[in-house]
Amino acid sequence: MDKKLIENINSPEDIKSLSTEELEELSNEIRQEIISVVSKNGGHLSPNLGVVEMTVALHRVFDSPRDKIVFDVGHQCYAHKILTGRYGQIKTIRKEGGISGFPSPNENPNDAFGAGHSSTSISAAFGLLNANILNKDDSYVVAVIGDGALSGGLAYEGLNNAGRTKRNFIVILNDNKMSISKNVGSMARYLTSIRVKPSYLNAKSRIEKFLIRIPLIGKPSYRLVKGVKDFIKRKVFINRHNIFEDMGFYYYGPFDGHNIGELTDAFNAAKRRKGPVLIHVVTTKGKGYEYAEKNPKGFHGTAPFDIDTGLTKSGSRSYSEVFGEILCELAEKNERICAITAAMQLGTGLSNFAQKYRSRFFDVGIAEEHAVTFAGGLAAGGMIPVFAVYSTFLQRSYDQIIHDASIQKLHIILAIDRAGIVGEDGKTHQGLFDVSFLNGIPNVTIMCPSYFDELYIMLKNAVFSEKNIVAVRYPRGGELFRHEDFKTKNRPYTFFGDEKSDILIVTYGRLFSYACECMESLKKRGISSCILKLNTVKPIDEGAVYGAMRYKGCFFFEEGIACGGIGEHLCYLMYARGYKGKFYLTAIDDEYVEQSSVASALKRYKLDSEGMEETILKKLKM
Amino acid sequence: MDKKLIENINSPEDIKSLSTEELEELSNEIRQEIISVVSKNGGHLSPNLGVVEMTVALHRVFDSPRDKIVFDVGHQCYAHKILTGRYGQIKTIRKEGGISGFPSPNENPNDAFGAGHSSTSISAAFGLLNANILNKDDSYVVAVIGDGALSGGLAYEGLNNAGRTKRNFIVILNDNKMSISKNVGSMARYLTSIRVKPSYLNAKSRIEKFLIRIPLIGKPSYRLVKGVKDFIKRKVFINRHNIFEDMGFYYYGPFDGHNIGELTDAFNAAKRRKGPVLIHVVTTKGKGYEYAEKNPKGFHGTAPFDIDTGLTKSGSRSYSEVFGEILCELAEKNERICAITAAMQLGTGLSNFAQKYRSRFFDVGIAEEHAVTFAGGLAAGGMIPVFAVYSTFLQRSYDQIIHDASIQKLHIILAIDRAGIVGEDGKTHQGLFDVSFLNGIPNVTIMCPSYFDELYIMLKNAVFSEKNIVAVRYPRGGELFRHEDFKTKNRPYTFFGDEKSDILIVTYGRLFSYACECMESLKKRGISSCILKLNTVKPIDEGAVYGAMRYKGCFFFEEGIACGGIGEHLCYLMYARGYKGKFYLTAIDDEYVEQSSVASALKRYKLDSEGMEETILKKLKM
Repeated sequence: MDKKLIENINSPEDIKSLSTEELEELSNEIRQEIISVVSKNGGHLSPNLGVVEMTVALHRVFDSPRDKIVFDVGHQCYAHKILTGRYGQIKTIRKEGGISGFPSPNENPNDAFGAGHSSTSISAAFGLLNANILNKDDSYVVAVIGDGALSGGLAYEGLNNAGRTKRNFIVILNDNKMSISKNVGSMARYLTSIRVKPSYLNAKSRIEKFLIRIPLIGKPSYRLVKGVKDFIKRKVFINRHNIFEDMGFYYYGPFDGHNIGELTDAFNAAKRRKGPVLIHVVTTKGKGYEYAEKNPKGFHGTAPFDIDTGLTKSGSRSYSEVFGEILCELAEKNERICAITAAMQLGTGLSNFAQKYRSRFFDVGIAEEHAVTFAGGLAAGGMIPVFAVYSTFLQRSYDQIIHDASIQKLHIILAIDRAGIVGEDGKTHQGLFDVSFLNGIPNVTIMCPSYFDELYIMLKNAVFSEKNIVAVRYPRGGELFRHEDFKTKNRPYTFFGDEKSDILIVTYGRLFSYACECMESLKKRGISSCILKLNTVKPIDEGAVYGAMRYKGCFFFEEGIACGGIGEHLCYLMYARGYKGKFYLTAIDDEYVEQSSVASALKRYKLDSEGMEETILKKLKM
Repeated sequence: MDKKLIENINSPEDIKSLSTEELEELSNEIRQEIISVVSKNGGHLSPNLGVVEMTVALHRVFDSPRDKIVFDVGHQCYAHKILTGRYGQIKTIRKEGGISGFPSPNENPNDAFGAGHSSTSISAAFGLLNANILNKDDSYVVAVIGDGALSGGLAYEGLNNAGRTKRNFIVILNDNKMSISKNVGSMARYLTSIRVKPSYLNAKSRIEKFLIRIPLIGKPSYRLVKGVKDFIKRKVFINRHNIFEDMGFYYYGPFDGHNIGELTDAFNAAKRRKGPVLIHVVTTKGKGYEYAEKNPKGFHGTAPFDIDTGLTKSGSRSYSEVFGEILCELAEKNERICAITAAMQLGTGLSNFAQKYRSRFFDVGIAEEHAVTFAGGLAAGGMIPVFAVYSTFLQRSYDQIIHDASIQKLHIILAIDRAGIVGEDGKTHQGLFDVSFLNGIPNVTIMCPSYFDELYIMLKNAVFSEKNIVAVRYPRGGELFRHEDFKTKNRPYTFFGDEKSDILIVTYGRLFSYACECMESLKKRGISSCILKLNTVKPIDEGAVYGAMRYKGCFFFEEGIACGGIGEHLCYLMYARGYKGKFYLTAIDDEYVEQSSVASALKRYKLDSEGMEETILKKLKM
């Protein structure tokens, strides 16, 4: 068997000499490789399968890393990584010590800008372009953004700012007719209207029309001859109604995102244009893998799966699923309960709610800021809105939480999923900031279940008993180990273990399971200890503070950023009240947590039972 | 002299019976009242003068508080406050204990939703509308948004979400052809293009056209007869190119924002339409006060001024001015330095920079998120971007600071103006969160000058010596008292005073002046003390921590939120290192600071010299 084309690609330069047919063959090889790797490592399948040909065409036409290609969200960068010298490492993607599942400038100079969150590419690319202008560098800058990401306000701010540049600036709209779920909102409807327009001519004639509009440098005679004709065509073209043209972009498309020849022509044409250009490319999410094409949502981000059957190993019940069930139950009882998602219906467990309570379900698109302000409006109108959101994406709503809910003391519930360490998605997706930033905001209550039954109690309290903003945060995945003596109570805190001991372990959320294991292990060594399990971490109940002060040594373990976290705050509260003992805090100290399994990361930061025990034993010896 | 019309307005009901001529007279009275009040209290003049007639027409057509009117930003609500029963209190606006300069639902039920920050109204109003739908309440919901606020991504997210509703939903675009400064970006250009279009027909014929498109309930015969004709007109109309129609809104305008009759007709027409409607109203910022019309920027937000001359008392030099001067000096030396503002060129002191270094100056519109991501792109391209922004608005960039700068270790400078208590703008504008939220973000350095010469040193360090993200934060206004023995040093911290004392006062920023006064006052009582002045508050130098541990009593005073602030963090660092003494923290404890003068607020929170002394004496007695 001949060597595969993919094996000869060590840099984007290596594809420039290949014919369109060879590039099609290469695309197939890349596609098979992506399916193979994601079936083993898990990752983003549908988005990557959708952009293989587009990525090949991009690297054929542009000279990365001199030309800068900025991927939005970045979960569609696998083909890009393969084409930019990382074929040999692609099997390590998303693994500890391996390459990232997202663009990472530190990893490779072809990753022009880091990503992970949505809607940033136009802004970042426009910054790079302006640096080019100031550096008198005439290389190209290209932003690649999906139609879903276009629902984020940041993308609009970028378009608004970039639309007035005189320099060539290329935005490629990767329109796969969906966001992570089905794309929502006016812009999505608008894109549909463009797609089905009768003006969808065949590619060749469209490119001809496009070229006609470009000033033909060095061909004055041609230009003169064609003058009048061009003018007429231009007028006709301009009158074609287009939102992107209103925003100052020259719009061109839509193109078939799986036709390398057509894309090559389109991208080459885009390079020749002065000012901002938007190239509309229509792709099929999950392209080339039957199960993903049929169920692009399910294969958007996936756990390892069997290629032949498309089936993932069915995991245990997750917090997301349980949250969805509980919310349905509560919504059945109370008609004021509404659910909001920012394009994460499936991920946050809201699919059933969406079906059952359609009028009270709101998918607002990838628009976390709007989600919170909209929730504020619902609350001001007497509803009880529950915004289900991943911790890392809630970062987007920081000001809206303050300005549109907290100051006005509106009762909204933040159901914070993927709180804490999330694993293989790495730095950009860790849920390590939410406690720290919510802790500093007035009129906020934060609750942290360690088990599903606690989630139930807390959600019920959040909806029916509490006031103002209530955050209930829970990790990715399911429950951990449960101590046989532990009984769930509807209280803000619990002391569990030997209350006569000198040693207190303080923690919240899923780490409680590890704390229990640690306590048992210490017991075997003849060391007795007690655990303070905080259910409500903001505000910390005075009973918990004074209770903790009875212990000589207080060991706080926190799966979150140390600065501004609960550990530092409790430390202050205890010493301010005259605590005489020792306080030790183990948390994530001012750094980002790299990709790895959750278990491995917790081990690395000494937040699992062995780590806890090691820390305690070490301090006891001192 | 007859009683003025304005004196008879106790609720919006009272204007419904007035004729258009009387309402014009009322508008003039309101305008005079606003000029008079703002000349004494300071406040937002130009925006309020621009919307008097529009506000009168709104309350004539809609039934507030049953109908909800949501003002964006809210600095244009003075006429609204006068018309909704607060004429008697308008003289107290922005004063301690008085009414707010922004909509505040707690203050009055006619303030449908709180505001202060930009671009929230569509989202909030759409939440209120959906609550109405679920409550089976058919009252109207109206969002009033300026063209400047339309540059914020949140507004777009709102339009995108609301554009698909089937219910009547009214957005009034108050287009005064500017943001706080001249409005920038594609949307601003686009609005200009609409304004000057030949299709700007006279109001009457436009309203006729508009009415034709509305289903005429109860007039089937009329409808039948007009059927074909209407259809043709509709077609023509639809083909009129409009970005808002693309977003799903029925667009109508532009209307003369100072013609009450025309506005009345337009708003009445809007009520009759199903689905979302955008009414484009053109107003003149500063209307009716010559100096404000000529210089709307200068009178956007103003200190008290002389009505006859339009002159404000020239205040002392502000940090903003000094920042602008320093940045110009640094930019002269280094061509990589760029300045970014989010529509706050004047307020942040960047006007000279904008003129002198035009190619390196970027006003991105009211788009703080984009500003940071764009800065990230500039930095990735080798520039040194300085984003000058008010503390309260930087809250919008929280995720972008993490995702688009910190994770990638990009070198950007955040020049944080209006840090700390800001005074009369009140709750929504206090700069009390920035230290707390930046403190939790890795790869961030935070510096806090107490004097202008320190600002110079810190900015220079930030630009030339430091790496990653550097925040330099300084308060509204100018320098405070300077102790004659104090000498500025280029160091992360300074111990100042009696280093043999048992008492340590710790603080940073402008509170250092009060700490010096406190120290002198204690000295007069025979109590010696020392001050630890932190120049760099993140990270805290180990020398500062161990130095502080030499003192028996440590009194930290912080002009910021306690949770996650420097006080709690230093407390933890000291005790973790074995501190045996007492630590006392005075900061803003989990609440919002109400409007008042800065001095009064500092006094209230015991952060001025008397407050510091009182706290110390009290603890010493214990």
